[in-house]
Formats: sequence, structure tokens, C-alpha cells
Amino acid sequence: MKKNIINHLQALALMLVAATATTGCNKSDNETTENNGQAMIDCIMTRTSIRAYTDQPIGADSIEVLLRAGMAAPTAVNAQPWHFIAITDKAKLEELAAGSFQPQMLQQAALAIVVCGDLTKTLEGVGQQFWIQDCSAATENILLAAHALGLGAVWTAAYPIEERIASVSEALHLPSTLIPLCTIVIGHPAEQPEPKDKWKPENVSYNEYGK
Amino acid sequence: MKKNIINHLQALALMLVAATATTGCNKSDNETTENNGQAMIDCIMTRTSIRAYTDQPIGADSIEVLLRAGMAAPTAVNAQPWHFIAITDKAKLEELAAGSFQPQMLQQAALAIVVCGDLTKTLEGVGQQFWIQDCSAATENILLAAHALGLGAVWTAAYPIEERIASVSEALHLPSTLIPLCTIVIGHPAEQPEPKDKWKPENVSYNEYGK
Repeated sequence: MKKNIINHLQALALMLVAATATTGCNKSDNETTENNGQAMIDCIMTRTSIRAYTDQPIGADSIEVLLRAGMAAPTAVNAQPWHFIAITDKAKLEELAAGSFQPQMLQQAALAIVVCGDLTKTLEGVGQQFWIQDCSAATENILLAAHALGLGAVWTAAYPIEERIASVSEALHLPSTLIPLCTIVIGHPAEQPEPKDKWKPENVSYNEYGK
Repeated sequence: MKKNIINHLQALALMLVAATATTGCNKSDNETTENNGQAMIDCIMTRTSIRAYTDQPIGADSIEVLLRAGMAAPTAVNAQPWHFIAITDKAKLEELAAGSFQPQMLQQAALAIVVCGDLTKTLEGVGQQFWIQDCSAATENILLAAHALGLGAVWTAAYPIEERIASVSEALHLPSTLIPLCTIVIGHPAEQPEPKDKWKPENVSYNEYGK
């Protein structure tokens, strides 16, 4: 009997070691960071455009997470030349849909975030155009954060297509200093498409072009 | 003695329960997804530009993870109008540094990835310019993946600054159809700056501008 108990004790101890080694309990900071890192890589690799949504709404907390993720993007000389318009009002989403090339997505969506460049905050001279890169980085952050929250999203471009810029600007009453880069359409996913595998080794050179 | 063993056994069993309950062992898929999602949000919020690096090299496996993350970005009409040049050769990094506005970073770096728009793969007409947004999204993915791998990185712009484009193009022998958007400078961090808090509620409107 005593031997049995000791055997159980040893088995439990081994399970405990296994549990702590493989699941992160009592992990060192480095191990925690590594696991979080893998979760991040997985999130990047599994994000894909979602264009069909259920009618479930998206809460204010989630909207703030998305907006914070957008504003966490890097910007040239830290100018942060952007403004974000979060749209949950169904009538306003319909108004955006009316001017959209894919209206049914905006009609279904619980949320749209229009990412705008703010020309009052851009750099001078040729650097003014960095707002496009800055706002694109913010958009990618929002898409990834949406995926992280279990939401589905798709980037629909406005800039540099004049008629789309005009249509979005009119619907949202944008001043002329705000240029809509894109409308991110967001909702709870009603489809689960496979992420595209876009890895192409021929799109890489090493140390100089063609090598 | 026997009672002692049973007490130890109970204590171990409780520790085992605690370990599996709090760390994700035997978690449901939903819980795993939620935790991974939070890890992703944390990664987005804690990424910041790293400009000083140790002399530790970066392995080929990590370089491929970064490049795969870049190519996982969304692109307009799935054109994937890009080419990536990964530079680890010290002489080539020195050559890039010579034309850079912040040469010391490239001299220290283990790796640079130059993200280029490929004008042979862009859309027609005004849509050609989408390569800037597509390559910016790829750049942000690479920055986040670098952070996820415990590396430090910083986005240094080339496009649309003519002299920087010319300098990078010459060093990497780029054909005229490849336009370098930026050089991502990457290494093992030798500094740990606090991430900037860029959250500004005044940068958000709800449903239309100014509301």
C-alpha cells in the first residue's frame, strides 16, 4: 500500500512537471514571451479577409481595443497624422453602403472604421505623403486586432480613387483636411474561408536583387 | 509517515489542478483562442521602434518567419505587388548605411529587409498606387513578427524621397520596376524603450466627423 502511494506520488509529480513545462505555469518571462510570440505569428498567418457577418453587435470595449491597436502603429517622425471614424449606426452604414462597390458587406456589418489621413498633422514637403504609409500600418493593426478578438474584417480602399473619397467624405461630413484611406468593414464572422497561402520564395532576394 | 505522504499527495494534486486550471493545459479551443488573441493584442500594444542592437546574428529560420509574415498581409485585388530583399551581409549593410540618414543602426544590425513595390505586378491606372498601402501592411506585419520573435526593428522610409530611393536602389542593384518603400532594420535589442502611449480619444469620431 505504501509503495502504491509512493508510485502515485511519483506519477503525480511527473504530471506536475509535465504540466508546468508544457503549459506555461510558473514559466520564466522568456518562455511566456516565446509562447505569446508564437500566438502573434499564428494570428498574422491565419488572418484573412472576412466579407460575411452575423447580426451580432460589437461592444464599445472591443471598438476601443481596435482603435487603440490602430493608434499603436508607428508613424514617420511620430506625427500620428490620422483620424478614425467608428460607425455602428445602421443608417450611416447604409449610407456608406450606397456609395460602396461592395454594398452588401456594409449592410451586414456591425461596425466600420474609416481610417483617414489628417493633413493638418502631416510632415512638410514630400514627407506629407507618409500619411498613406502610416495609416496603412494602422489599418493592418486594426485588421489583426479584429482577428485577435474573433471578429472578421476586410480592408476596402478609398484613396486614391477620387469617387470613393468623395462618397465617403460626403457620408461622414469630413473636412477637406481629412482624406479617407479606407473603410475597414467589421463584424462577427458568418464565413470561415481558409487563409490564402501567399508565400512565394521567388519574391525574395538575398543581399541584392536576384540573388 | 503514511499521513505525511498522503498530505504531500493532496498538496501535489491541488498544485496540479491549479497548474492546469490557470495556464491553459486542457483548455477548450475557445479559451485557447481568447488567450492567443490577448497575446496578439499585447504584442501590437508593446511593439516599439528599436534602434540599438547586439552583435548576435539572426538565423535563417527567423528570417523566413519574418518574410512569411510580410507576405501574409492583404493586398488590393490580391495582387501581391512586392519583392523583399533580406540583407545579412555585413559589407552590404555597410553600403546601405553609407546612404542612410541613420547609418549607425544599419552598421549594428544583423539584418535589414528592404520592402519593394513591384511595378510589374501592380493594378492598372490609379490602382497602381495601391502598392504603397500593400507594402506598408507587409512592413507592419514584419515589425510585429520581429517583436513576436523577441527581435527589435525599426521602419526607415525610402519612398517617396528620391535620393533615398536612388541610394537603396543602387546598393541592391534594383531594376527600375522595383521601388524600395522602406528598409526595416532588425537585430537583437540592445535597448528596451517604453512603448509610446499614442492613444488620443480626440483622434476618434463616432458615426460622422466631430461626433
